[in-house]
Amino acid sequence: MAFETAWAELSEVLGDRVTRSKPERDAHGASETYFPVAAPDAVAYPETTEEVAALVRICAAHGVPVIGYGAGTSLEGQSQAFSGGVTVDFARMNKVLEVSQGDMHARVQPGLTREVLNEELRATGLFFPVDPGANATIGGMASTRASGTTAVRYGTMRDNVMALEVVMADGRIIRTGSLARKSSAGYDLTGLFVGSEGTLGLITELTLKLHGQPEAITSAVCAFDTIGDAVRAVTDTIQMGIPMARIEFVDAATVQVFNEYAGAGMVEAPHLLVEFHGSESAVAEDAGTFGEIVGDHGGHGFKWAADAEERKALWTLRHNAYWAIVNARADTRAVVTDICVPISRLAEAVEATQADLEEHNIRGPILGHVGDGNFHSILLFDPADPAELERVKAASDRMVQRALEMGGTATGEHGIGVGKKAFMEREHGEGWQVMGQLKAALDPDNVFNPGKLVPDTST
Amino acid sequence: MAFETAWAELSEVLGDRVTRSKPERDAHGASETYFPVAAPDAVAYPETTEEVAALVRICAAHGVPVIGYGAGTSLEGQSQAFSGGVTVDFARMNKVLEVSQGDMHARVQPGLTREVLNEELRATGLFFPVDPGANATIGGMASTRASGTTAVRYGTMRDNVMALEVVMADGRIIRTGSLARKSSAGYDLTGLFVGSEGTLGLITELTLKLHGQPEAITSAVCAFDTIGDAVRAVTDTIQMGIPMARIEFVDAATVQVFNEYAGAGMVEAPHLLVEFHGSESAVAEDAGTFGEIVGDHGGHGFKWAADAEERKALWTLRHNAYWAIVNARADTRAVVTDICVPISRLAEAVEATQADLEEHNIRGPILGHVGDGNFHSILLFDPADPAELERVKAASDRMVQRALEMGGTATGEHGIGVGKKAFMEREHGEGWQVMGQLKAALDPDNVFNPGKLVPDTST
Repeated sequence: MAFETAWAELSEVLGDRVTRSKPERDAHGASETYFPVAAPDAVAYPETTEEVAALVRICAAHGVPVIGYGAGTSLEGQSQAFSGGVTVDFARMNKVLEVSQGDMHARVQPGLTREVLNEELRATGLFFPVDPGANATIGGMASTRASGTTAVRYGTMRDNVMALEVVMADGRIIRTGSLARKSSAGYDLTGLFVGSEGTLGLITELTLKLHGQPEAITSAVCAFDTIGDAVRAVTDTIQMGIPMARIEFVDAATVQVFNEYAGAGMVEAPHLLVEFHGSESAVAEDAGTFGEIVGDHGGHGFKWAADAEERKALWTLRHNAYWAIVNARADTRAVVTDICVPISRLAEAVEATQADLEEHNIRGPILGHVGDGNFHSILLFDPADPAELERVKAASDRMVQRALEMGGTATGEHGIGVGKKAFMEREHGEGWQVMGQLKAALDPDNVFNPGKLVPDTST
Repeated sequence: MAFETAWAELSEVLGDRVTRSKPERDAHGASETYFPVAAPDAVAYPETTEEVAALVRICAAHGVPVIGYGAGTSLEGQSQAFSGGVTVDFARMNKVLEVSQGDMHARVQPGLTREVLNEELRATGLFFPVDPGANATIGGMASTRASGTTAVRYGTMRDNVMALEVVMADGRIIRTGSLARKSSAGYDLTGLFVGSEGTLGLITELTLKLHGQPEAITSAVCAFDTIGDAVRAVTDTIQMGIPMARIEFVDAATVQVFNEYAGAGMVEAPHLLVEFHGSESAVAEDAGTFGEIVGDHGGHGFKWAADAEERKALWTLRHNAYWAIVNARADTRAVVTDICVPISRLAEAVEATQADLEEHNIRGPILGHVGDGNFHSILLFDPADPAELERVKAASDRMVQRALEMGGTATGEHGIGVGKKAFMEREHGEGWQVMGQLKAALDPDNVFNPGKLVPDTST
């Protein structure tokens, strides 16, 4: 078998940093959501770009798939090995290589997690803002075009990756982008690799934009009688141009879990969680205006975080929401939806989702990054009940259909993997075939992450 | 000849909206800079996407090149027909199709100019900020990944194009992107076409992000003793996080032309032109802080625009700088350089450029978008003196070399066309070959804008 020959060559290059141990293979084939384990044939831990290139050349020569792996926090099966092959775990390529305070950028390795990056940046007065909740790796975040709670202010990975080093399917090592803040020098290769989910190449280095730590930060929660009221308060705030650093929505069902799981002591109603960054005076002014808008929409129970401790507790609660919801009942798994719609349609999209779930008797707490028009419903099902999984998938399908009819997208930040491939043709039409042409051009033998994102090929 | 057969078919589809008139062909083959006229075999004026697709299918079938054309304001020969073929002038596809005030976006046709767009937006309270100076078309600006004076605040075309309709080389019509503010649904095709200079497809429709017209705008000029002082005042302002909407640098030689050409009455020294957008209080605070920073760097002669008239006059002066400089002496043409470097290296890059030009006795006024690290030297030469053109090109080459050594780029906003192709391998290495692979995948017969941007193929 092709893999056996490749294995001998890989062991020669990587020594004991490539393994066929079953526990490690299974751990790297696991899903955070509802996919069964799909383990690779081996797991490799390269330490240099040259090792990655050597590994890719060996696997390509033997027709063995190569799957990139960061922290395994993706939600659509992106890092699972559905066709076997070698999973490349970047855990040993996890360093901050360079920080430029003057130019506000950092050069890092893909296996670095965002939390470690920000710890290392603390003394510089700078930070990396993209925050998907999970302590994902920077390489994984780039590959999924991640965003999260701060995108409304600081943008997504698309906006915060300046340059890349990438190993191509034939083992070539290329550099994309530059340290300049803008460029018109040809096709935007950086932008092409960001969001490509390891299907076009393996990212081995990234240069990131950094931002100044704000002089002042203030966070608050407030409750609303209806989902529509909460969402309309957000759209009004955006349309008035008030710069929010984070603006999150959670519905009553999510609050219920917060209370049970973390003793949050919140009234069981839809809430907004908001944060402002800026100078002391700007933050105070913005918070004041926001308070007025909230009042206009019947918001109540306004509570500002008293200090950094309380602020941190608030966002920890939000970040742990997914796990809290899934763990609220034993033997529960989830299909996580991720639609994103134009802001003007957001209230309608959320209300239609809630009505749909009620009608079909599906438990699906709703929460999301409403400043971007992006929200999730965590559709719960019992893994022992295949019919329930089918009902949940049908509900997810209807959510996507409504989002597309509103001009939106099936996924604001989680990506495609295998879990959302069924929506690609509907969203992109012939454009999905164009993605397949790009894949075939750069990875003609389908070495990188086969079966994900692009149309299936006949090979 | 292939073209003769194509001509008959094109005439059938487009009637008198395709022409072989020599004046029209020559006008569409002209350059704003130093390239000799390179006329197409015909010029077409399609009115619909379907006509564009039919035209492309005919040309592809007969091996006739297709060149997109907006306002002809590109500087590197992007719209010239060096291999003949059909130039597609989008002058009749110039409408605003839809404006959404709630979602702050506009759907437009590629032949619309940015000035007409902003006139049509005036009553909405919104505007489209990207401003390359020339009254370019939106399609051309997207194709060149244009930016200009406001990129420091509002980003470039990369940041302000949400979605596209594109005609592919085989006549397929695809749609990229969506109306959602973010998406992780596959490869960023929108980002791939933006900046591709018509080599991958013809853009037939664009959805643009709009921004709220600022409550208050204030502009000023101030003088400095040295280039380095002016540039360092800018980098300090950026590093303090003061949000400038525009920040432009002009050297003493440029000011001299302003005075001669437009009676500007400025002291002949390096100047900064700055603008702030925001609330009345924010603009006043930012302007005050900027004034202090300028003072620290020996800035003097601070002059705030008294009203909208004076502000407009200031930016008209800046926008006309290129023509003023080129027309300052009879029989002068120019090679326009466009390097962009990390902010921390900007003063060094500008000073090295000035020293280089002095040493080699080249007239090259320097001006640029210093907030992005991007500046131009307009290298003047006498078209009757080929040796001078060679000296000017050598100076341009040295500027690029220095920019690349600083981690920068050969072109911040003008693009590649034919004029900057010689720098692509040096800037991107093997990445340039990857761009060639993408071109070959999407346009295997090299129908679109042959000879531009990507490596030459053997076909």
